[in-house]
Amino acid sequence: MEVKARAPGKIILTGEHAVVHGSTAVATSIGLYTYVSLRFTTPSDDEDLLKLHLKDTALEFSWPVSRVRGAFPESAAQLSSTPTSCSVENAKAIAALVEHLDIPEAKIGLASGVSAFLWLYSSIQGFKPATVVVTSELPLGSGLGSSASYCVALAAALLACTDSVSTDVNHQGWLSFGEKDLELVNKWAFEGEKIIHGKPSGIDNTVSAYGNIISFKSGNLTHMKSDMTLKMLITNTKVGRNTKALVAGVSERMLRHPDIMAFVFSAVDSISNELTAILKSPTPDELSVTEKEEKIEELMEMNQGLLQSMGVSHATIETVLRTTLKYKLASKLTGAGGGGCVLTLLPTCTVVDKVVSELESCGFQCFIAEIGGTGVEINFGASS
Amino acid sequence: MEVKARAPGKIILTGEHAVVHGSTAVATSIGLYTYVSLRFTTPSDDEDLLKLHLKDTALEFSWPVSRVRGAFPESAAQLSSTPTSCSVENAKAIAALVEHLDIPEAKIGLASGVSAFLWLYSSIQGFKPATVVVTSELPLGSGLGSSASYCVALAAALLACTDSVSTDVNHQGWLSFGEKDLELVNKWAFEGEKIIHGKPSGIDNTVSAYGNIISFKSGNLTHMKSDMTLKMLITNTKVGRNTKALVAGVSERMLRHPDIMAFVFSAVDSISNELTAILKSPTPDELSVTEKEEKIEELMEMNQGLLQSMGVSHATIETVLRTTLKYKLASKLTGAGGGGCVLTLLPTCTVVDKVVSELESCGFQCFIAEIGGTGVEINFGASS
Repeated sequence: MEVKARAPGKIILTGEHAVVHGSTAVATSIGLYTYVSLRFTTPSDDEDLLKLHLKDTALEFSWPVSRVRGAFPESAAQLSSTPTSCSVENAKAIAALVEHLDIPEAKIGLASGVSAFLWLYSSIQGFKPATVVVTSELPLGSGLGSSASYCVALAAALLACTDSVSTDVNHQGWLSFGEKDLELVNKWAFEGEKIIHGKPSGIDNTVSAYGNIISFKSGNLTHMKSDMTLKMLITNTKVGRNTKALVAGVSERMLRHPDIMAFVFSAVDSISNELTAILKSPTPDELSVTEKEEKIEELMEMNQGLLQSMGVSHATIETVLRTTLKYKLASKLTGAGGGGCVLTLLPTCTVVDKVVSELESCGFQCFIAEIGGTGVEINFGASS
Repeated sequence: MEVKARAPGKIILTGEHAVVHGSTAVATSIGLYTYVSLRFTTPSDDEDLLKLHLKDTALEFSWPVSRVRGAFPESAAQLSSTPTSCSVENAKAIAALVEHLDIPEAKIGLASGVSAFLWLYSSIQGFKPATVVVTSELPLGSGLGSSASYCVALAAALLACTDSVSTDVNHQGWLSFGEKDLELVNKWAFEGEKIIHGKPSGIDNTVSAYGNIISFKSGNLTHMKSDMTLKMLITNTKVGRNTKALVAGVSERMLRHPDIMAFVFSAVDSISNELTAILKSPTPDELSVTEKEEKIEELMEMNQGLLQSMGVSHATIETVLRTTLKYKLASKLTGAGGGGCVLTLLPTCTVVDKVVSELESCGFQCFIAEIGGTGVEINFGASS
């Protein structure tokens, strides 16, 4: 049997950084996916191996299942219905399994993803030989939630082959999970995210699992569904960011200028609230789609100005802003800033060829994605 | 007798636009001046003419004093101690005097300055033949207060030759006015500004007359003196702005997003208050000059972000920001935005040659000026 799962990436529409200081932020899934295909193999097939193939990076790893089994003193399987954090002992065992892989120095960042795979696989499926193939439309480490979508798709594929979730294997095409199963997928994905990120907020995996739009404030998530189809141009500046340093920089600025920054954060909070009101309002409404798009563009422009006043912009981000402004398109950074990705709203009927080719000529990478689509889905019997 | 007056230009350090909505703004004089030299001529000298020579624009105008006298039915002279607004009748008479001048179309914007001259001259000095020469270090119409410094210098030169003010004609070098005389100069200059601008705020002429630093909020001006010597790079993008449209744009945005904009304006208010606290604090202080400069840079960066969230930036302003950022210098637009001038703080010991030459290669015009210097001054017997 083969099962394929796909889970979307995410963007933060408004409120990054300010959310750390109590403001509302709004995140949404984007129509760019990480795909995980899982195929159980029989011993005769492939020497009893557990194989992980990260296709985009051309890396392929394999372990004899007996080695994996030996690494986990307490058998972890049969616990698929109870998401469990990786203990210190298990983390050590996983580290030993990963150490042997000789991952090239340039790709060493993937090691934590491999560790997350080993934990999720052994916890949910135990020690069956299998081949897992991962591909992604999301750039790594650019704030588009690539690691969360990887964990969600992985958890989904693994759980789809257990009794813990109820899926209809006779169905063809992409299937969604039921509410309870989705919660289980999301919780396991969060355990994977913890291995990759240490202390993730849980927002990325939640958006990837549930899709649509989520507003979050002081740790509380609110799901939202929008009638609006919004298309975003996502420009990856390819400048790597130090998220921790950027977050710390904003906090230090707040300590130096508490009054100013409190107003800045409140302004961002109001922006997120206004955005959710627009997104939730039914279409047709007293406002036309064009009027809504113009409002959203203005909110993005204001949020970008406020992010600049927090000191988290970057020369490459400004280049994207300038370039898109020439085409009368509104943009803002998304995520941590200091590089990373920039969002540009593409109003209905925008012709994007020219702006994309100009951005690409700056060395940036462009994606066009609809936002707020479905979350994680699975597909049985798809050819990989 | 010849008298020369000079009056400085101004910049807005923080708070432009937000000041219209109740926030505090901070303005300061800059060490760039408009010079007015006044020399009374005898009839034999020069056919009984009143001459105005605007040297920078190579324009020279003259009127027989009899024509000027005939234009004002109520003799205006001997009222130099009572600043008087130009009545509708007098404005008509002045318009007739200006109409005859055949000012070239490209320089028609100067007509209102000529009108202000005729009103101030005839009101303060009556109808004596004289030659008035004007030169300025300030670019016209770029938000650096060129028209106010022209009116202040003009009023100062004219009043210095009356009994209304008490100046010591035996002194050489630049002299300041006493408090009461300065008030008179400022009030007359304001009457000139009204002819040029219709409804000026009075801030530009006040900064030009008094010098130093002025904070203003809801129409109230507070004079300040700072120990700090701050040097600014002022880059003129040479992009003409429509100040009224920019001010209206911010107001419309406020109507569309009242909550967000209220916080943005409050943040700007806090920025201005923090800036004045730094500028007023004695040096040496618990903070070193370098620490103060860093704080001011951060305040400028934050104010710029907030101005961007008001929608008053411009592609050329962003170019200046990017360019100065490469040299780790903080910048913000000053005045109305949408083009105009950009301020860049030059911390003590900054080497500026490179950034200036890079900005000039973009087609911009750079000035370096100390801020917060003296206001209007006069000089008797200086050779013009």
